[in-house]
Amino acid sequence: MSQRRADDSEPTTPLKTTKVAGPLGIIAGRGSLPAFIADAASADGVPVHIIGIQGEAEPDIERFPHTWIKWGEVGRVFSALEKNGCNDLVIIGGVSRPSLKNVRIDVGALKTLPFLLSLRKGGDDHILSRIVRFFEQKGYRVHGAGDVLPELLVPEGPLTRRTPSAEDEADMALAFKVVRTLGTLDIGQAAVVSNGYVLAVEAAEGTDAMLERCAEIKRRGRSHGMGRGVLVKAPKPGQEERVDMPTIGPETMVKAAEAGLAGVAVAAQHVLIAEYNRTIKIANERKLFLYGVPWSGPDA
Amino acid sequence: MSQRRADDSEPTTPLKTTKVAGPLGIIAGRGSLPAFIADAASADGVPVHIIGIQGEAEPDIERFPHTWIKWGEVGRVFSALEKNGCNDLVIIGGVSRPSLKNVRIDVGALKTLPFLLSLRKGGDDHILSRIVRFFEQKGYRVHGAGDVLPELLVPEGPLTRRTPSAEDEADMALAFKVVRTLGTLDIGQAAVVSNGYVLAVEAAEGTDAMLERCAEIKRRGRSHGMGRGVLVKAPKPGQEERVDMPTIGPETMVKAAEAGLAGVAVAAQHVLIAEYNRTIKIANERKLFLYGVPWSGPDA
Repeated sequence: MSQRRADDSEPTTPLKTTKVAGPLGIIAGRGSLPAFIADAASADGVPVHIIGIQGEAEPDIERFPHTWIKWGEVGRVFSALEKNGCNDLVIIGGVSRPSLKNVRIDVGALKTLPFLLSLRKGGDDHILSRIVRFFEQKGYRVHGAGDVLPELLVPEGPLTRRTPSAEDEADMALAFKVVRTLGTLDIGQAAVVSNGYVLAVEAAEGTDAMLERCAEIKRRGRSHGMGRGVLVKAPKPGQEERVDMPTIGPETMVKAAEAGLAGVAVAAQHVLIAEYNRTIKIANERKLFLYGVPWSGPDA
Repeated sequence: MSQRRADDSEPTTPLKTTKVAGPLGIIAGRGSLPAFIADAASADGVPVHIIGIQGEAEPDIERFPHTWIKWGEVGRVFSALEKNGCNDLVIIGGVSRPSLKNVRIDVGALKTLPFLLSLRKGGDDHILSRIVRFFEQKGYRVHGAGDVLPELLVPEGPLTRRTPSAEDEADMALAFKVVRTLGTLDIGQAAVVSNGYVLAVEAAEGTDAMLERCAEIKRRGRSHGMGRGVLVKAPKPGQEERVDMPTIGPETMVKAAEAGLAGVAVAAQHVLIAEYNRTIKIANERKLFLYGVPWSGPDA
């Protein structure tokens, strides 16, 4: 951990330039990661252009050359990428499934309508894989955030002062089993287990909402009285990790603490951590553990 | 359906007296089913004694001979059963996992302390099976609610005017697959699928809370814009159906409608329906389907 940057706003790890040769296009959803990657790229002399999805991306992306788009403005995405010479792409940050009223179909979208309509059905993974393939078919190179900036990946071992107890480890083992099983059905990436009892399973609601539910379940006395519990996150089998890697951050720790959990365990090297220093600080303050479990794939 | 009673408050189907010979003890949790079964037994000339769990059972049980108990008053349960000559038992109605402050340990509980402590760990099914075995070891016969009163079981086929569309049937098939898979991990008994996308999976929060979440997910636009979705409920593999059968009722239909679902599909003969007439009436008013799917066991 000694090589970690002291301040989240100043990345010290350069972009893997073996990966990204020319200008980097960043298609930005929610959260701090798009701007963080743009900072790292800029520090490394790699020009960036951020394409922010309206209603999702943070205003902070406006620190960089950028284009705002609405859902469905496919033509606008390609013209922005082309104009800025971006052949390398990172697609990063959570997005909500758009409701139809927020979708604006431009000419570029009309051309790709059969593709867009094909996205209306199926699980997340199915859709995201097709989006990546769509860009690749147009000649773009799509990189995972962790590929271009490895410090975004949760490393193996403990990241906090606290470490899992024997009981926590038993809960972790069951939770990983649950997440692996769910993954085969393209459901969620997370579960909470307390004292051998599965408190909650994530589907479309997202991790934060699931943790809020755990807090409520505990308040209502619907869990075992004794256990604290752990949150586990891991990728789904066959998950398109370049665009849909499970992510944790400060909010994950705040909500895990509010749910009375003992800690958080994730698949090492397969989960992104946003705002590393702040996330670890909160975990330590709230006496949570954060642990990267060696992960040899979802079927191991 | 023509043989169904016209009014939920007056059961017409007699208790299966081949099953229950003498006085029937009913250990009552939440909901209307305990009193409903007591009404059926009384109509059939079978004496009853209801043991109501405080904070769970409805005040309505006081229409019958009854004893209120707190969690942990094991001795009081056995003395009430013995005093009233009840060798046949039905354990019915939802219960919350008690928090320790609500548990009162009586002398009978002290005698069975190793057993009680063994209940602190593990999933629902594990615990409920052990409770049944505990009563059986003491010489009691534990019956399922559907065994003594078959009209409580959801029959095969459509129960409502609406029936599932082809799209609903595809969602039902995926939701049954999800529930089967979850069941192997002793998690929940229900899932919601909309347009091929798993919206929600039930764990400790219960079906009503899961449906509320689906309504919220749809409001926030985190589902596919087009789909309506179905709720599916089915037992877990190896589930102790005598004490833990999945249950639907009027509230299920109200919340399914609020979540914008097209309908509800359950494992026929393996799911209980509380307040049959009112449940169907609400489903019809809200234009939902309710469908009993032939169920040959969770591994089929």
